Amino acid sequence: MVSLDVLLYDTTLRDGAQRENLSFSVEDKIRIAAKLAEFGIHYIELGFPHSNPKDTELFRRIRKLDLKPARLVAFGSTRYKANRVEEDPNIRALIEGGMDAICIFGKSWDFHVEKVLETTLEENLKMIYESVCYLKENSPEVIYDAEHFFNAYKSDQEYALKTILAAQEGGADYIVLCDTNGGTLPSEVSRITREVVDLLKVPVGIHAHNDIECAVANTLVAVENGATMVQGTINGYGERCGNANLCSIIPNLVLKKGILCLPKENLRRLTDLSHFVSEVANIVPDFHQPYVGQSAFAHKGGMHVSAVQKDSRAFEHINPLEVGNHQKIVVSELSGKGTIVSKAREFGLDLSKDPLLAAKILQEIQNLEHIGYHFEAADGSFELLVRELTGTARHYFTLESFRVIMEKREDGDVVTEATIKIHVGGQRIIATAEGNGPVNALDNALRDAIGQAYPQLSKIRLSDFKVRVIDEKKGTAAVVRVLIDTTDGKDSWGTVGVHENIIEASWEALVDSIIYGLMKMEGEGAASE
Amino acid sequence: MVSLDVLLYDTTLRDGAQRENLSFSVEDKIRIAAKLAEFGIHYIELGFPHSNPKDTELFRRIRKLDLKPARLVAFGSTRYKANRVEEDPNIRALIEGGMDAICIFGKSWDFHVEKVLETTLEENLKMIYESVCYLKENSPEVIYDAEHFFNAYKSDQEYALKTILAAQEGGADYIVLCDTNGGTLPSEVSRITREVVDLLKVPVGIHAHNDIECAVANTLVAVENGATMVQGTINGYGERCGNANLCSIIPNLVLKKGILCLPKENLRRLTDLSHFVSEVANIVPDFHQPYVGQSAFAHKGGMHVSAVQKDSRAFEHINPLEVGNHQKIVVSELSGKGTIVSKAREFGLDLSKDPLLAAKILQEIQNLEHIGYHFEAADGSFELLVRELTGTARHYFTLESFRVIMEKREDGDVVTEATIKIHVGGQRIIATAEGNGPVNALDNALRDAIGQAYPQLSKIRLSDFKVRVIDEKKGTAAVVRVLIDTTDGKDSWGTVGVHENIIEASWEALVDSIIYGLMKMEGEGAASE
Repeated sequence: MVSLDVLLYDTTLRDGAQRENLSFSVEDKIRIAAKLAEFGIHYIELGFPHSNPKDTELFRRIRKLDLKPARLVAFGSTRYKANRVEEDPNIRALIEGGMDAICIFGKSWDFHVEKVLETTLEENLKMIYESVCYLKENSPEVIYDAEHFFNAYKSDQEYALKTILAAQEGGADYIVLCDTNGGTLPSEVSRITREVVDLLKVPVGIHAHNDIECAVANTLVAVENGATMVQGTINGYGERCGNANLCSIIPNLVLKKGILCLPKENLRRLTDLSHFVSEVANIVPDFHQPYVGQSAFAHKGGMHVSAVQKDSRAFEHINPLEVGNHQKIVVSELSGKGTIVSKAREFGLDLSKDPLLAAKILQEIQNLEHIGYHFEAADGSFELLVRELTGTARHYFTLESFRVIMEKREDGDVVTEATIKIHVGGQRIIATAEGNGPVNALDNALRDAIGQAYPQLSKIRLSDFKVRVIDEKKGTAAVVRVLIDTTDGKDSWGTVGVHENIIEASWEALVDSIIYGLMKMEGEGAASE
Repeated sequence: MVSLDVLLYDTTLRDGAQRENLSFSVEDKIRIAAKLAEFGIHYIELGFPHSNPKDTELFRRIRKLDLKPARLVAFGSTRYKANRVEEDPNIRALIEGGMDAICIFGKSWDFHVEKVLETTLEENLKMIYESVCYLKENSPEVIYDAEHFFNAYKSDQEYALKTILAAQEGGADYIVLCDTNGGTLPSEVSRITREVVDLLKVPVGIHAHNDIECAVANTLVAVENGATMVQGTINGYGERCGNANLCSIIPNLVLKKGILCLPKENLRRLTDLSHFVSEVANIVPDFHQPYVGQSAFAHKGGMHVSAVQKDSRAFEHINPLEVGNHQKIVVSELSGKGTIVSKAREFGLDLSKDPLLAAKILQEIQNLEHIGYHFEAADGSFELLVRELTGTARHYFTLESFRVIMEKREDGDVVTEATIKIHVGGQRIIATAEGNGPVNALDNALRDAIGQAYPQLSKIRLSDFKVRVIDEKKGTAAVVRVLIDTTDGKDSWGTVGVHENIIEASWEALVDSIIYGLMKMEGEGAASE
């Protein structure tokens, strides 16, 4: 009775954020939720509605957005043992959250009921039944997460089944079997899921953790045995060893099992989604991550390379384009020129008649990527580079030199000052400015120096600033990459700088961001005349 | 016919080294081989005997070592289609390698035979039979790796089976089913392995890749269906998305399935083995790696922390000590007083009798987290903060002031210099140093200034450096958080700094990292006296 319909339930914003060293701002959560909805995820779990002021703000702000058909989910637990359900503050908060669905977890494992909840097995059944029942009366959809279900089943099968029957009786729309500690083997998940699916009337879901490196497999075997909802996170983020990784589960379902849980064309945005979430979370992407990693389709061995060049199926289990990724030959590669040509066409340069020039640009980009540049999020720097190499760049100013002085004084005060010597419009200008930090001081000094020649600069402001250490093993002597996003209020563009000196790397990205902005405004000015 | 005996076959040095950016020296390979043998791995695959001078040297040197009972394996392939087997140079090299066993791979997939080998299906069967037969006559043990076996079986079942029957007829001691492209589902591996085990007389092994994140599960289900040899790599290193990870497979076999493939006490060295190999490979360990990762038993959510404190089985699937790892309580905005008390106990401070002090510390941590600090990955700074608040801190030096000057000169050169004024051991010291960047220059100046008072400082080095912009929307004026990891070669600790000036934030984290290191070495010195 394997169903072709599987519902995707994302818990990156709640269970994913339990990962050590990961924390999302309200703005981050809203951006991720919007991206998940656009990708085609069916349920997006947001967290506890009132656990702290950040979450309260999230629920308030997200209610105003239209992310349909995705359903937004508030997450909580069964009522507290000593409370009447209708007076339980957490249950009330879930209802007041006003989301499309509510998911609560309850205890299935006798050991947890007695040792952690410190209540009786009977009382726990009542807590489950009453909580589900009351929530179902007060909200459109209730999903019940049976915590530690597989441990529970192995410890006391009869009691474990009673807990989910209580949730079914309470009116739960979905019952999700959770391998909370992540230690259950695929063969056990298969067998137990099958038994539960045969027993229950309501549909069953699976929520796996990766503590024995089987979260993806456990999710798949549960689906093969009748589960029709999968809970997981983008990139498998989560506490300890992570949650089941939706970035592997989704293509496994669509491409390997033919289960169309989302339109096949959406799958082409999978790599982008994965990188977007890691970027927002500021976690270095795992290059070797299945399907979406930069090395997932990289070929190194000479034999493998010549074989994939004859026929890529030789050493590739799918066509990487199906998930928005691409093949990578680790030795030098001559393909990829097409990408350069089509990217240049985007900003009005026709390189198709000059393959040698396109090859030269490709070579230069590969050289720069080799030393740490990254143009995926730096379209501004990419265009400036292509214009430089094709002789179509415009030079707005020439730097002579700069100096930054930063002092921490005896009284603890920190002061920073930057001086820039620059040539602009035939003049040599020296400008000095203070700032919160070295990059801010340079930004201020540059604007002072060229502001008179280019007053339109005041419309440009930096909107985002990211720093990544490339070779972390080198400690404070490592090379860093700085990514800057800049906006003129209408559009935004990214620029990149790489250097072992963080200030020089920032300066590179900063100068690109300003030149690109000036060029863009000029083009628009011309067009509107 | 599930056997209780499973043989462990490591291919870190050959297939593992196919990972992008990974290369081992001869010395590295010898150290890893010795460590694997000591751990209890049965087969250690070294590579092709004559593929390059490095490998020739490896074979020459390793023959002199006694790594018994581990068996050393030379790896190659069936003879070239146009060669007589006894004249094939690669076959001869395998024999001359003089190892305990030889493993060769051959083609099972009709598509590969025709498109990659460019020979006939008949000739391929001869190549397999003759190669295995001739090697078996000239060496003690022959293992046959059936490349792409699962794709082959799904493409042309009859031919795929013929290829392994040819290897059996040739006298292979083991036939290993390889999921070379890593795209096969666990349910397919189960079924196909079972059919092969039922068909063959010789024992069967499994070799899985992780392209759909199922390599560990595929290995387990193969064992459940009769495979008795598992091929994999330490930490799952390997081309693309990696090979099956022995660091997860081994504890899964021993602890989850009761298969004693090595003495249970050896398992306590698993975490050490994993870190040793990542250290030699110079790859930053994955904190979230199952069983052996630094975060594999880390608990963050308040509810989870209080539950594992009642009984660690609540949220731990095994006792971490069984694999040489340990529990970790993560301090975050989600934690309560209990976390503080148990964390302080880890470094020998008993706060349980002073709940007011514990509450004061918690309050201070929450205040600091509110302005951007993050102690989850900064146990060093956390301990220093607690020691400061409990009056148990030691002050090694006092900063008077510092100054950093960074210049980008007319010729494009970037120079950075830092001057520190500091009081140490009753003296006032002024030190100036250059560096790659501002933080490196400060690091160098600080070491110059206090190096004479604390020569043990030379043992400490920074191993990781991370920067995160906290409020990215403020552009170059945003607050940044710097996380530094430091090691003394044995242990490592994290420290944190937060400031709107990136240099000041780095300085804070840097000073903490050095004070913590000095304190730690002092404790160890005292203990050994």
